[in-house]
This record gives sequence, C-alpha cells and structure tokens, in this order.
Amino acid sequence: MKSVNLKRLAQELNLSVATVSRALNDRYDISQATKDRVRELAAKLNYEPNPYASSLRRQRSGTIGVVVPEIANHFFSLAINGIEEVARLNHYHVLIYLTHEDYQRELDIVRLLAGGRVDGVLLSAASTSYTDTHLEMLRERGIPLVFFDRVHQAPDNAQITTDDYESGYKATRHLLDVGCRSVAHLTIAPTLSISRRRMQGYIDALLDGGLRYDPSLVLHAQGRREQDVEMIQDLLHQRPGVDGIFAAVESLAVGTYEACRVLNRRIPHDVRVIGFSNLEIAALLDPPLTTITQPAYAIGKEAAKVLFKAVLKNVPVSSGHSLELKSELFIRESTFPAPKLVKSA
Amino acid sequence: MKSVNLKRLAQELNLSVATVSRALNDRYDISQATKDRVRELAAKLNYEPNPYASSLRRQRSGTIGVVVPEIANHFFSLAINGIEEVARLNHYHVLIYLTHEDYQRELDIVRLLAGGRVDGVLLSAASTSYTDTHLEMLRERGIPLVFFDRVHQAPDNAQITTDDYESGYKATRHLLDVGCRSVAHLTIAPTLSISRRRMQGYIDALLDGGLRYDPSLVLHAQGRREQDVEMIQDLLHQRPGVDGIFAAVESLAVGTYEACRVLNRRIPHDVRVIGFSNLEIAALLDPPLTTITQPAYAIGKEAAKVLFKAVLKNVPVSSGHSLELKSELFIRESTFPAPKLVKSA
Repeated sequence: MKSVNLKRLAQELNLSVATVSRALNDRYDISQATKDRVRELAAKLNYEPNPYASSLRRQRSGTIGVVVPEIANHFFSLAINGIEEVARLNHYHVLIYLTHEDYQRELDIVRLLAGGRVDGVLLSAASTSYTDTHLEMLRERGIPLVFFDRVHQAPDNAQITTDDYESGYKATRHLLDVGCRSVAHLTIAPTLSISRRRMQGYIDALLDGGLRYDPSLVLHAQGRREQDVEMIQDLLHQRPGVDGIFAAVESLAVGTYEACRVLNRRIPHDVRVIGFSNLEIAALLDPPLTTITQPAYAIGKEAAKVLFKAVLKNVPVSSGHSLELKSELFIRESTFPAPKLVKSA
Repeated sequence: MKSVNLKRLAQELNLSVATVSRALNDRYDISQATKDRVRELAAKLNYEPNPYASSLRRQRSGTIGVVVPEIANHFFSLAINGIEEVARLNHYHVLIYLTHEDYQRELDIVRLLAGGRVDGVLLSAASTSYTDTHLEMLRERGIPLVFFDRVHQAPDNAQITTDDYESGYKATRHLLDVGCRSVAHLTIAPTLSISRRRMQGYIDALLDGGLRYDPSLVLHAQGRREQDVEMIQDLLHQRPGVDGIFAAVESLAVGTYEACRVLNRRIPHDVRVIGFSNLEIAALLDPPLTTITQPAYAIGKEAAKVLFKAVLKNVPVSSGHSLELKSELFIRESTFPAPKLVKSA
C-alpha cells in the first residue's frame, strides 16, 4: 500500500510526525500557519487518517452495526435507509449484517460485534431467535443496543416498535366489518414479539366480534416461498369456508395471492385478504392489496437516534427510550365487501 | 469497556501475554496442552481478538465495502445477498454504503474507503457519477475494486455486468413483434453504462425493424417518483400514438403502470409495457408485467468472488476478470398482442 501517512506528510513539510499529527488534530500548541500548511498538503494528497490506528487511540470505531433478518424485504430496506440517514449526519459508518432468520448466525454476529468492532448495535431479531443470552455479551462490553421491530423481552432494553397488537386487531376487525365470518391468520415464528402481538390482536378482535377463536385457522409459515404457498393452498382447499385471510407479513399476503391464483379463488369475491406490508406497489397488484403499513423509515430513524444518544453522549440505553409508532390501514380492493354481503349487512 | 483481552486471559492462566497470543495463533513453539488451556478459557469468556489491533498487525481489516445507489430496490438487495454469501464463506464482513445516486456522496465514500478501512471494494455507480478520478485513489492505495452492473469505463477494471445491449435489443424487438409501431424508451442518466447500452439496443432494434429512431421518444427520468410519473403522463398525453413502452429500470415500469391508471390507458390494449425488473411479484401485477430479469444474486456472487481472489490471493484485478451474465425475458400479459393486431399480422 503506497498510502499517504503522517510520516510522508511530515517529510514533505519538513516537520516532525508529532507536529503534523497535532496540527491535524487542531491542538492549541500549533500555530495557525502550520495548521494551514499541513491541512493543505493533506487535502492535496487525499490523506485519510488510518481508521484502525485512530480507533485504537480513541477507543471508538466510528461504526454502528445493524443486524437484520434480510434486506430483500421492503420493511428492512426502508428501515435501513432511515438508519443510514441518521448515521451519515453523525459521520458514522453502517455495517449491515444479515441473519437470514438463523438464530445461530445471529449469535455468531453478536459475539463478533461484542469484540469491539462497533460502537453500538441496532438489532431486529431472527424468527428463530429464542433467547437473548447473546445480547448480554454486548451489555457486558458496554456496547449499547437498540432493538427495532422484532424485539427480545429483556428488561431495560430500548425498543422501537409499532402498535402490533392494535394493528392486528384493526386488520381482523376490518375483515369482520366487510362481512368475513371465518378468518384465517398466517404468521411466522410464534416466539417472535411481532407474531405474538399481532396474533393477540387477531384473537381479541374475533372474540369481540362474537366469533370463536379456532387455533387450526392459525398457520405458521417457514419462510420458504414454495412451501408457504402450498401451505396456504392446503388451507384454502381443506377449509373452503375460510372467507378472510390476515397475513402478518408481506410475503404471506403475496403467497396468498399466488395460492388463490392456482386454486382459481377470486379475491375479494371468494376470499378477502389483508396483510402487513411496505410494498410500494400494493395498489398495482391484481387486485390492489389492503395493507397495514408500518412507518419503516421512521422506525429506522428513531432507533438510530436513540442509539447515537447512547454512543455519542454516553446516555445509557434503557426502556425509557422505547417508542411505539403507529401503523396505518390502507383499504384497497382485496377487502372490498362482495355486493351480496353489503346487502345482507 | 470491561473487555476480555489477552492480558486478562494471561492473568487467569498465569501465562505471559505473548504465550497466550501465540497459543491463540496456533504457533509451533507452544505445546498442545497450553493451546488447549488457552482456547478453553477464551471460549468460556467469549474472548474476541480486538479487531482494530489485529487489523493494524495484519494490515487487513477483514472487511469489504459495497457501494450501491440504493437498497430499496430488488436488484441491489438481491445482489447484496449474493455478495454477503461469498463474504461469509470467507469470514469477511460487509460494510454497505448508499450513495443515493449522488456523485458527491460516492466521491466522499470512496475517499474514505481509500483510507484503508476495507480490503476491497465492490461498486455500482451512482447515476450522476461521471468521472472515475475518485476510483484512482483506491488503485493508488492498492485496494482492489470490482464494478458490478453500473460500471465506469476505466481501462483494466474488472466488471461484472449483464448483456445490457442484447437485452435492450430483445425487449424492443419483442414490442415490435407483438405489433407496436411507436415505442418510447424510459431510462435514467445517459452517462450511465447500463443506460447507454440498453438504449443502443433499443435504437438498433428499431432500425432493424424498419422503424425510425425518434430521440423525442426517449425520456430520462430524475429518480423522483412523482415527477417521473408526471413525465410519463405527459408523454402518453402528448404522443397518443405511442403504443409500446420499454422501461430501462423497474421503477419506470411501475411508474408507467401508475401513469396509465391516471390517464385510463389500458395495458396491453392501448399501450404495451416491458421493463427491466427483479420484482418477484411481477406476475401478480395488474396486468402481469413482462420483464427482462437480471441474474442479480449471481452478479453479486461473481463480483465478490473476483474481489476475494484479489484480496486473499493477491491476484491483481484486471479486465481479464470481467464477466457478462445473461438476463432473461419473461413474457407476461403487459405485452400480449391485442387481438386485432394479431389478425392484421
């Protein structure tokens, strides 16, 4: 590496390395003229301080880590955009890690981050994640951690989430309002915070609507596209009375569309569909999909803001920093009431 | 930071720091028994070597940088998944940087990376990027660089791209084959390699099809959703004869759908639409969208493989490593020939 280092700057300027270093760090004991000379040459030669040497000196890496299940997903890509915006304003780098919904990988990543590569961590749990012992490691090392969206139930964590219970309730209630009498719920790992809350909203809305909660109408997907679509086909086939589907995640709403296509079931006439989704083109689907849409970008931003408070101002992260943002219901054709149902209502 | 460092391991084991370090690095002069003792305690205490200290020693950061215009885009999120897979197999970290299509930001990022934070860089150029002087910096510092998809025309660069010219030709040819006689082309920055190649394919297919090339039917979008949709509306309004649209990027195919909806133009009856897209749900749109689909995941993987050859085996990156992968045409309803056109053909 023919890098421009302090030594080379010092040689060219006929100064000592220490003087050059102090000039670049704006120390009081260096004259303005010298500072100007050093900075001019540093700019000309594109000098960048060695980040690892600086990190060792400052005990700061200038980097935060973001751990997410996947990025080929609108929620996470929008949330990362929000995080990245805040990081940029703080002159910080963002290291992105993908767990691919694998607890073991999440564990490995957290262990590695606990080694001091980052100054703080933002994490959204993998669907197979079931303990938070690995997160204790970060705490022990004094590396602040903020959860977003998919959270662990450890005490005194800062968690930026959305109103999952209320949204699950609202989604189910909406299906009942448009005439559904047998509503299935498609969701992911039951251990996950968001799954539990959305499902509790589903159950309570059913009961408040005078319906029975039938656990056999709740299906847990594996996150493998083809199998999930088959699972939905089986449901629609074996339970022909199902007239409404509430999907807890975007991929399962899309999977429901695919399953209905295969079985020639019409949406909304035969079955009405609502799903959590940040799909920008939900309105261009056939039919346009009714969604519960999370403020993904804002979640990322808020989580990053809390983290930077901890990182830069040494404010310890605590549950007092937790925030719950509101999701929004967008009603589209996939839950339009069928004409006869409107009449009978 | 209450971190577990070499010193603490040494104290607990009653060994010297040097011995502990050599044991962890599997040096020949340390007995197997000592290595076992050291490793056992290191595992128990979740010891992780200080990455910055290791980096300084090894002159390796164990990290690669990926610079992309955005991630809320299926092409890039899939490509990053491919990159991340290869990095993981090589026990490397992936730092992701977003330029948001801003040349200045791309410049800042590259300057920063040239400072030695990463061992190699994968880059897909911002649409406003017009010179590659900033990339010279990486070369000067001996940091290997591999371009993917959106490339700069510097000599001796390794570039992993797709057959953009052939795909642009194929897309336009397909529109002519289904009866279109006035085909507009929607694209992004004309300075961008992918734009130029796709557009040249468009022009040649028109000429080969016996049609005239009309530059006023080529529109360059700004990448701002609402303005882009308005631009397409203006085109459809002012040029009612346009019966085919070839969108060079996904967002412009989606924008065409939105514009057609506003103007009540039917796809494919009034206007046929084809677009480059990695949208998984292209088949669920109304109507299903005909696409040219790039092998995004494979592009990411191949680019990362070339980079790791350079990083780990000190093979200099050169144009000899360049690869061109093939995109695929998926014909769907948005380009179905209208019945009367089939008869007249």
